Amino acid sequence: MIIEPTLILDEEKCRRNIQRMADKANRNNLIFRPHFKTHQSHEIGRWFRAYGVDKITVSSLNMALYFMEDGWKDITVAFPMNILEIDKINSLASKIKLNLLVESVDALDLIKDKLKHPIHLFIKIDTGYHRTGIHFSSTDRIDAILAVINATQKLTFDGFLCHPGHSYAAKSTAELSSIHADTVSKLQLLKSRYPNAMLSIGDTPTCSIVEDFSGVDEIRPGNFVFYDLVMQHLGVCHYDDIAVALACPIVALHPDRNEVIIYGGGVHFSKDRILDDKLGIYYGQIVQQLDQGWGNPIEEVYLKKISQEHGTVKCSENFIKQCTLGSLLYVLPIHSCMSANLTKSYLTTSNRTISKL
Amino acid sequence: MIIEPTLILDEEKCRRNIQRMADKANRNNLIFRPHFKTHQSHEIGRWFRAYGVDKITVSSLNMALYFMEDGWKDITVAFPMNILEIDKINSLASKIKLNLLVESVDALDLIKDKLKHPIHLFIKIDTGYHRTGIHFSSTDRIDAILAVINATQKLTFDGFLCHPGHSYAAKSTAELSSIHADTVSKLQLLKSRYPNAMLSIGDTPTCSIVEDFSGVDEIRPGNFVFYDLVMQHLGVCHYDDIAVALACPIVALHPDRNEVIIYGGGVHFSKDRILDDKLGIYYGQIVQQLDQGWGNPIEEVYLKKISQEHGTVKCSENFIKQCTLGSLLYVLPIHSCMSANLTKSYLTTSNRTISKL
Repeated sequence: MIIEPTLILDEEKCRRNIQRMADKANRNNLIFRPHFKTHQSHEIGRWFRAYGVDKITVSSLNMALYFMEDGWKDITVAFPMNILEIDKINSLASKIKLNLLVESVDALDLIKDKLKHPIHLFIKIDTGYHRTGIHFSSTDRIDAILAVINATQKLTFDGFLCHPGHSYAAKSTAELSSIHADTVSKLQLLKSRYPNAMLSIGDTPTCSIVEDFSGVDEIRPGNFVFYDLVMQHLGVCHYDDIAVALACPIVALHPDRNEVIIYGGGVHFSKDRILDDKLGIYYGQIVQQLDQGWGNPIEEVYLKKISQEHGTVKCSENFIKQCTLGSLLYVLPIHSCMSANLTKSYLTTSNRTISKL
Repeated sequence: MIIEPTLILDEEKCRRNIQRMADKANRNNLIFRPHFKTHQSHEIGRWFRAYGVDKITVSSLNMALYFMEDGWKDITVAFPMNILEIDKINSLASKIKLNLLVESVDALDLIKDKLKHPIHLFIKIDTGYHRTGIHFSSTDRIDAILAVINATQKLTFDGFLCHPGHSYAAKSTAELSSIHADTVSKLQLLKSRYPNAMLSIGDTPTCSIVEDFSGVDEIRPGNFVFYDLVMQHLGVCHYDDIAVALACPIVALHPDRNEVIIYGGGVHFSKDRILDDKLGIYYGQIVQQLDQGWGNPIEEVYLKKISQEHGTVKCSENFIKQCTLGSLLYVLPIHSCMSANLTKSYLTTSNRTISKL
């Protein structure tokens, strides 16, 4: 019985999301290296193995250690190399093929003499997101890094990696397609100069809508495993693809202003939000409850405000009449990666607990 | 040695914040019932005992259970009663004086026959925040609740409780004073009708700047134990009062755009933010590092953007020259309650680990 905010996982939707992306990678002859930062769970990770996945992406060395424990032997840490974690790097590299990101000679100079085992490197390329990475045209910087890699026995260059995260701000799927085309064309410029380099891209928005991945070797989407309202709002998934919802008890009713208070706040959802033309700022959408799982969003019923543990749900006049103290509302999250990070485990719609990091 | 994002606690600042609020409560003959949702730590909780504090506030029954384990025997759960957690309520009420909030007859009707031990009740009053609670003028609803309490042996009415959280949106300390005066005048209207009721208020902004608490019996501030940039921005604390900072390794340098990338993102800070006239939206401020702890914020150096693990720090031209890969930046958090919730423990500036829930 659910008595407090609980992240519910619809296993069927989740497995369908995995299958769809795996099939797409397969059709395109791509290496499918899913990002596991979203689910952070051994068991959910295992669901990918049915599709032949044996390479994964994570966002921290701690996460790499967690998944190594479950038998993953080829892990890319898609985060700029943190030289302070050299002991974890050595520990991982002693047991698996560890792929790290590099974007400066300095980082390599600082760790190369401390490495006890071989590591593989991707050079992080900035193709337009401008968070981090080397601008795709800075071949002098790339050459300098390659010179250090080539001169260092424990270092192997695997290829170029980028995260076109500016896709999250796209206004249409046409814009997403154009971001993808632009990303590939920039990476191809590098490929013409460095023909042996593998090209790795990864973000859920473009990987979800693009069908032809010519010119790319590997994809690393992560969020697609659950999707969320950000992705639905972007137009890259349907409500029906969102595989997690937070079940929250109703703790107070305010029919005078068509609001109910749920037990479910920033410590469960995170503070991510969407600014919508119609609803304004909102923090989640309430869905219909089914015997097992949930259905479509209920019109005009959404999470309007959150504080640490309180959530304020704006209701329609009709909906609030059905609300009672102690019943549950199922809320689709804005950003599933962050909501999943805040939970200690998942409860499936078949009432099974799935542990996570 | 700090190698990954770590929440650093300046014990001296924290103890000074506690002492200042305890002294103020003492001068005003108030019951000081601090809210422990901010620190969520047995050890930090114990620091309050030196000031005679033996009553506390928490925001969930789970937190109440955690603090009961450390010997707290009088706990108010400042959250609308969640009838689904009746087993936890019974477990707590069997061992301590448990004070719950009620704002409807329905909630009492749903639990009264399931109670195995006496509980104490505060009626939650809405004095202007409009999150939840009974409007202060709805005395018919209050009378109906009191009738149920009086007719039920295991229920005792303690008083009225409010959280004037609209203080967080105040534009000046003068406005905060006026919110406090308004809150007290509304509670006093209730007091004139229900003379035996205790009056409990609690929010860090007003409790920090008000000096005269006439007309109030109890205060329940929480955030003041650490303070944060929201409080500094509101004008209720100085930078020097902020007792926590997140130490984050530098993992990439972008001198061409005066930015550095730190290991420190939404999973460490939460996604709370401040919209500032000068800086725009920001997620933290970088402070000077001292031999032990930290000093003042560095002008024009702030956390401009965060994703799951990445933080983008905007630097001055001068500051970025001193930044090196693998050195740490100390970042004051926007909302310390949320950042503390995301950490598993604190590291003091004297290098001692303090555990938490």
